[in-house]
Amino acid sequence: MIELTRRATFSASHFYWNEEWTVEKNEQVFGRCARRNGHGHNYTLEVTVAGEPDPVTGFVVDLKWLKDVMEREVLDAYDHRHLNMEVAEFAKVIPTTENIAIAAWTRLAGVIGQGVNGTAVAQLSRVRVYETPEIFAEYRGGQ
Amino acid sequence: MIELTRRATFSASHFYWNEEWTVEKNEQVFGRCARRNGHGHNYTLEVTVAGEPDPVTGFVVDLKWLKDVMEREVLDAYDHRHLNMEVAEFAKVIPTTENIAIAAWTRLAGVIGQGVNGTAVAQLSRVRVYETPEIFAEYRGGQ
Amino acid sequence: MIELTRRATFSASHFYWNEEWTVEKNEQVFGRCARRNGHGHNYTLEVTVAGEPDPVTGFVVDLKWLKDVMEREVLDAYDHRHLNMEVAEFAKVIPTTENIAIAAWTRLAGVIGQGVNGTAVAQLSRVRVYETPEIFAEYRGGQ
Amino acid sequence: MIELTRRATFSASHFYWNEEWTVEKNEQVFGRCARRNGHGHNYTLEVTVAGEPDPVTGFVVDLKWLKDVMEREVLDAYDHRHLNMEVAEFAKVIPTTENIAIAAWTRLAGVIGQGVNGTAVAQLSRVRVYETPEIFAEYRGGQ
Amino acid sequence: MIELTRRATFSASHFYWNEEWTVEKNEQVFGRCARRNGHGHNYTLEVTVAGEPDPVTGFVVDLKWLKDVMEREVLDAYDHRHLNMEVAEFAKVIPTTENIAIAAWTRLAGVIGQGVNGTAVAQLSRVRVYETPEIFAEYRGGQ
Amino acid sequence: MIELTRRATFSASHFYWNEEWTVEKNEQVFGRCARRNGHGHNYTLEVTVAGEPDPVTGFVVDLKWLKDVMEREVLDAYDHRHLNMEVAEFAKVIPTTENIAIAAWTRLAGVIGQGVNGTAVAQLSRVRVYETPEIFAEYRGGQ
Repeated sequence: MIELTRRATFSASHFYWNEEWTVEKNEQVFGRCARRNGHGHNYTLEVTVAGEPDPVTGFVVDLKWLKDVMEREVLDAYDHRHLNMEVAEFAKVIPTTENIAIAAWTRLAGVIGQGVNGTAVAQLSRVRVYETPEIFAEYRGGQ
Repeated sequence: MIELTRRATFSASHFYWNEEWTVEKNEQVFGRCARRNGHGHNYTLEVTVAGEPDPVTGFVVDLKWLKDVMEREVLDAYDHRHLNMEVAEFAKVIPTTENIAIAAWTRLAGVIGQGVNGTAVAQLSRVRVYETPEIFAEYRGGQ
Repeated sequence: MIELTRRATFSASHFYWNEEWTVEKNEQVFGRCARRNGHGHNYTLEVTVAGEPDPVTGFVVDLKWLKDVMEREVLDAYDHRHLNMEVAEFAKVIPTTENIAIAAWTRLAGVIGQGVNGTAVAQLSRVRVYETPEIFAEYRGGQ
Repeated sequence: MIELTRRATFSASHFYWNEEWTVEKNEQVFGRCARRNGHGHNYTLEVTVAGEPDPVTGFVVDLKWLKDVMEREVLDAYDHRHLNMEVAEFAKVIPTTENIAIAAWTRLAGVIGQGVNGTAVAQLSRVRVYETPEIFAEYRGGQ
Repeated sequence: MIELTRRATFSASHFYWNEEWTVEKNEQVFGRCARRNGHGHNYTLEVTVAGEPDPVTGFVVDLKWLKDVMEREVLDAYDHRHLNMEVAEFAKVIPTTENIAIAAWTRLAGVIGQGVNGTAVAQLSRVRVYETPEIFAEYRGGQ
Repeated sequence: MIELTRRATFSASHFYWNEEWTVEKNEQVFGRCARRNGHGHNYTLEVTVAGEPDPVTGFVVDLKWLKDVMEREVLDAYDHRHLNMEVAEFAKVIPTTENIAIAAWTRLAGVIGQGVNGTAVAQLSRVRVYETPEIFAEYRGGQ
């Protein structure tokens, strides 16, 4: 087993807000992140797949295919978007770095791991999302 | 003469829109950047001052003072903000990287260059703003 | 389970020296690191906590709280310090990158993992310390 | 147990080609990577060893020794080389990032983990190879 | 006047060889870089244009247009290529970092600076080429 | 004219102290930097030379020679040293980033710019010193 990772970036807006709280409570807990117009980040999405290198190609997974999957399943939905206002899964779930990593996993898990391009079958192993170079969340899926 | 530079980051939202254009024209010219909810970036602000090191302190300018100036004059206004909607100078000026660099220069130029903390007088020499690690604008003031 | 990581930096001095060895032996084993005035690094401390995102906040742990903990428990003691001469745990333990990671873990483990801020309980999962971008040690606690 | 990691870089050429395929098939699967003159990368090799810090030195492993091992076992063979044409293990195995990570592991595993320099015995734990900052493969050995 | 910079990367092979020298002389001067199969790098191309922001768009130059120009004029010719063997300007000129920067300038200077997309006219101001993060050449044209 | 730049790193200790001031005054102006045991940084030294590429080699200056010069003239004196206590020029001059850049220029200016290795004559053009990735000083010599 070997792990292969590809990174991509997307730029998005978000804010933190719990509809069941008062304005004061939101501002107390979320601070500057509670401002309702939103602020933004250059996020980095890091997707790791695990498998055996195909002896014919040397690939665990075709990196061009992985790039396409990442763009189609995640970046097209998140990049240059306001996550709270334009992305369905964040209508009621606060788009923290943790929740973005879980949501990206969910988007990818249905597509990766089913054998593509004639190469060996690889499994989604890890999704890491950086909000800034100093903060990141990592998810390895369910239990 | 020696130049001393300090970097800081801020996270903000913006979009590109010319009120005098139709929706179609805005979308044609600005593409994904024209989405009205905005998207965001981790911006890097890089401020350079030029002067002679004070023989008593070895400083061109006190870096703690410079940090405070950058925070008070620029970051407090831009960080965790939607630039188009919450920052006065971008009410009618599109917050491109170029215009953010010029606006940050304008904010800083009135404060830097007047001799502080008993150290030598230093001049604002350069403002650089990175929108992403791949794109930046640099302004040296004046004409 | 999801992991959330935050980075911070500190600047410190250290040297390598075993009091039970001769000068010659110290210089032979530790080379330039044995110079007794010390030399220094910009260290990066990377702290990872693991848990479930709180459904109310979306946080595994409040990142502002984590920042405060890192500053209070580690950075206040290590930053702008000479580790051998000013930090108790390195009076007799050589402050190698490995030992700094273990010591930072010990400092943090007593504080993280007890449920804070009304958010879900998260556990300290990993401490990584970079001495330079090319060298780092990682500790996950335990035996 | 603690893990200690050291990074190094090497610059090499490679191309992707399966001798049993037609030119068309190679170009279809490998795209620009199939051009036979080769292209190149600044690779980063990241080697992790695991063990207990020696109480006498504070080292899991002597980092100078680790640097020498990495240079002698991997960099001398790969750096400023055309991997397909000058490195034995890639005569028939396509030098994808995955296969380079496995090959570097194989080169290192015979040397690391046998107790050196009077320090504690450390085991090779992980080899990571970056082809670019956006793409990397990680191997932990075994089956 | 403000400067706007965009970065892109390309992966290429090269070697250093002067046809008028003996093998021994080439190896003496160029060392490992003289190996004739070539080795490679992840180069970074950094292109700077200078001008006034168009009051209508806020752009010195349309960054999408600049990206297209960089790809069409430089990256299509250099990326995934062996510079000595496949790029006309390096048939007789050794592809050192210095010469690559000058060649990229020459390729770009004929296209940038003639007013595009209805935006203000910007001039090519600077081309910087990184061979590695530690080595770069910068050219500002002229004589 | 083209500029060629090479980077190198060194790890050193320093503190800020003016012998003519009281302890209180030193602590007030220099804060944590006034602690007398010192603290340290991973400094980056960036040296730029300017000239014409030699038509025979394609080099403005031989990068191996430049590396040797940087090591012999600067790194051997500064790396793994306590700057205040072990480097002559900082016995009475406070080793701020500004003063380190000027001192490195002085060390290099006597050696670079006199024609070496049979290549074209290049001039020392710029010295930049990073104390951290967020703070750097740049010196271009002069009067």
